[in-house]
Amino acid sequence: MPNTPNPQLNKNGELIHLLSTEGLPREVITHILDTASQFVSVNDREVKKVPLLRGKSVFNLFFENSTRTRTTFDIAATRLSADVYTLDIARSSTAKGESLLDTIANLSAMAADIFVVRHGESGAPYLVAQHVAPHVHVVNAGDGRHAHPTQALLDMYTIRHYKKDFSSLTVAIVGDVLHSRVARSDIHALKTLGAGEVRVVGPRTLAPADFAAMGARVFHDLEEGIRDCDVIIMLRLQNERMSGALLPSSQEYFRRFGLTPERLRRARPDAIVMHPGPINRGVEIDSAVVDGGQSVILPQVTFGIAVRMAALSIVAGNAA
Amino acid sequence: MPNTPNPQLNKNGELIHLLSTEGLPREVITHILDTASQFVSVNDREVKKVPLLRGKSVFNLFFENSTRTRTTFDIAATRLSADVYTLDIARSSTAKGESLLDTIANLSAMAADIFVVRHGESGAPYLVAQHVAPHVHVVNAGDGRHAHPTQALLDMYTIRHYKKDFSSLTVAIVGDVLHSRVARSDIHALKTLGAGEVRVVGPRTLAPADFAAMGARVFHDLEEGIRDCDVIIMLRLQNERMSGALLPSSQEYFRRFGLTPERLRRARPDAIVMHPGPINRGVEIDSAVVDGGQSVILPQVTFGIAVRMAALSIVAGNAA
Amino acid sequence: MPNTPNPQLNKNGELIHLLSTEGLPREVITHILDTASQFVSVNDREVKKVPLLRGKSVFNLFFENSTRTRTTFDIAATRLSADVYTLDIARSSTAKGESLLDTIANLSAMAADIFVVRHGESGAPYLVAQHVAPHVHVVNAGDGRHAHPTQALLDMYTIRHYKKDFSSLTVAIVGDVLHSRVARSDIHALKTLGAGEVRVVGPRTLAPADFAAMGARVFHDLEEGIRDCDVIIMLRLQNERMSGALLPSSQEYFRRFGLTPERLRRARPDAIVMHPGPINRGVEIDSAVVDGGQSVILPQVTFGIAVRMAALSIVAGNAA
Repeated sequence: MPNTPNPQLNKNGELIHLLSTEGLPREVITHILDTASQFVSVNDREVKKVPLLRGKSVFNLFFENSTRTRTTFDIAATRLSADVYTLDIARSSTAKGESLLDTIANLSAMAADIFVVRHGESGAPYLVAQHVAPHVHVVNAGDGRHAHPTQALLDMYTIRHYKKDFSSLTVAIVGDVLHSRVARSDIHALKTLGAGEVRVVGPRTLAPADFAAMGARVFHDLEEGIRDCDVIIMLRLQNERMSGALLPSSQEYFRRFGLTPERLRRARPDAIVMHPGPINRGVEIDSAVVDGGQSVILPQVTFGIAVRMAALSIVAGNAA
Repeated sequence: MPNTPNPQLNKNGELIHLLSTEGLPREVITHILDTASQFVSVNDREVKKVPLLRGKSVFNLFFENSTRTRTTFDIAATRLSADVYTLDIARSSTAKGESLLDTIANLSAMAADIFVVRHGESGAPYLVAQHVAPHVHVVNAGDGRHAHPTQALLDMYTIRHYKKDFSSLTVAIVGDVLHSRVARSDIHALKTLGAGEVRVVGPRTLAPADFAAMGARVFHDLEEGIRDCDVIIMLRLQNERMSGALLPSSQEYFRRFGLTPERLRRARPDAIVMHPGPINRGVEIDSAVVDGGQSVILPQVTFGIAVRMAALSIVAGNAA
Repeated sequence: MPNTPNPQLNKNGELIHLLSTEGLPREVITHILDTASQFVSVNDREVKKVPLLRGKSVFNLFFENSTRTRTTFDIAATRLSADVYTLDIARSSTAKGESLLDTIANLSAMAADIFVVRHGESGAPYLVAQHVAPHVHVVNAGDGRHAHPTQALLDMYTIRHYKKDFSSLTVAIVGDVLHSRVARSDIHALKTLGAGEVRVVGPRTLAPADFAAMGARVFHDLEEGIRDCDVIIMLRLQNERMSGALLPSSQEYFRRFGLTPERLRRARPDAIVMHPGPINRGVEIDSAVVDGGQSVILPQVTFGIAVRMAALSIVAGNAA
């Protein structure tokens, strides 16, 4: 979807929109992760605020529902001292026949600084970024099956935090990869950061062979797929995006692809287990693994606030 | 609806509630527009805030849905540094049988400073203003078909910005005038500000002859109605307020009353085109006009924030 | 529901969670009421803010809808300068299969300071308090039929404001006591504060004899029940919690248990009339009583903000 020149960068190569990890240069990713590491401590303070976006207007535009992601962006922007306006667009003027681009033009005219956009259609945040006024920055909070760059960046932050160097790592992304924008964004980011090996693991219907084209090794057997891995990223079974024949029963799925403590032993003893949430215990992952010593699922959430603070403050600091 | 004495003014003639442009003295309107012009620059600042309402409590009471108007009031109050609480009343205690006036009394007791009220019933904000404690101010954000004073004031601001003097102007209000509170509020404001000629243009069913009683010339032919106009205010076809026989098809409506570039040539060459939004492209207005050089639709949005900041800060500054 | 040791207190006996008035020591209740009395004046100020919770994150977690209670907690936290995030959980990730405790663990990881929890299930806030990280405090905003401690504390504040000493008072709680978490919390608080006599008044179906076990005298006749009372707490008929045979008609209910000016004369001449709202005029209470000189219903609302400010600031100030 990104054309030449990269719509995410200005002519000095600085980040002005965060739309995808695809095409994001290594230095830009590293800059976001380094900035995030400075913000992690804000969350531990008595007063959890820095004044970097004071008096800026951040609009949370959720064309698709997501309490979790919306809340994390709300927190990140608020801790940067921005004013946050959340628009539940599904229930708004678009119902009166207004187009996406007219909605965006209107909100731009209200002196917006940042649009955080979640949309069911792949590519919608690109369309928005192409049409906003030069003073407005766009951050993709998930578009269709396409991309979820802040989730991927917090995943990279988490991996770097626990594993330091990417080049020696084997990373497995397990489960419903087909419907997962997180998986796509993770693969792009891992490749750019030079991960040793990226694997995609799941049933044939949910982890099709095409992922090889993205540079991933594809496995249809869980135990084989996670063997000797350093990092396992579990994905939620997205029942709501499946229908009929494609949809496995929860028990059947767990029996074949649920991550249990026994199966986890196939990975390296110091492997970490990640999950973007929300978790379905007993479907894609066993409770003992979620709550076990190798799980870094809750640290991911904490780092996610810092990574989103970094993304928002970096795009806002750069002129188009 | 306003009785003697005018419920919008205190005994010194200062604005304490903004309920309608009807009965609003010329000096008060001019004071709001002058104050707004000072706030326009706030929207361009690095830190888009002034401390005028710091620590004040503004309640957005939306008994009728409106993402657009709600958001503009939220932004205006936030940029004045107020604390804003939005109550989606349709889904609240009124469902448990509480009356409007009990809801209002309760919120007053929470030390409210300003109620922004949107209501489907004409006159509801008057009822609220009659019953609030003396420290509470009411701003009408649209009531039934009756009034939408902040929209009219931002329209006046826009006209004054582009055209300076009102006395020489011919202004046409075009479309579904019957269902439009904006049209009624615009006509009152234009009359008070001494506009040269006010016209109402639309099909007989939507622009009935009664508007002559408000001092407007009524036209049922678009090209005739906008001939030599300086200002054209287009209105949205409010399908949701019509039923059955009254409802024209979009194509039929556009063929007869849609503003196209060709038709716009009947107006003065420097005529401006306005629209309160949301726009239905290809129904009441052609895309080429929306995006053309005579359109001031997006500046209206920008001025709207400043005008609402002016209205909120002026009423809050005056004691009952 | 509270076990030994009391989950509301740390080992120094300081309040760390506010879950119920049951088991709350007298000194703790008195400390909350004394603190609230300092906050009452904040609501009268030009700038209605104190910086006590500046930069803290308060999450309003409403698993059950309540515009009124949600708004009062939002106001209280905002006036303490906290950042408030409201999650309408009914429409959120729990729909994707996430458990309450996983939701809570996730929000804790976002560096929450306080959870305000409203839940349809009795005991849910206890479960939350047992599982949050040590830096997080829980305030119960109403759980099932079990408890509504901040409402009870504002009731105690109101009684103390008008009546000073509890030991000489006769207090009647009238109406649908069976379904009322307010009634249960009021009875515990009144007992702890040493109220002279606590009565429960209502039809047999709604004021069952079991309330005697809580130390209340039970009456099934309104005039007898309120005779010589100092304080009358009227409860709303909670139609939405009743079905079929149990549900009296509004007229029938008003005829037998509606508080009219005539009936109010059975109480002491200086008796005060309270109601937690929302009020159903003409069902449990006559309009003339609501608006009459003995009604302290609106002062309850005002005191409620101060009491919630006190509860939030006290729990936040104490380490687990």
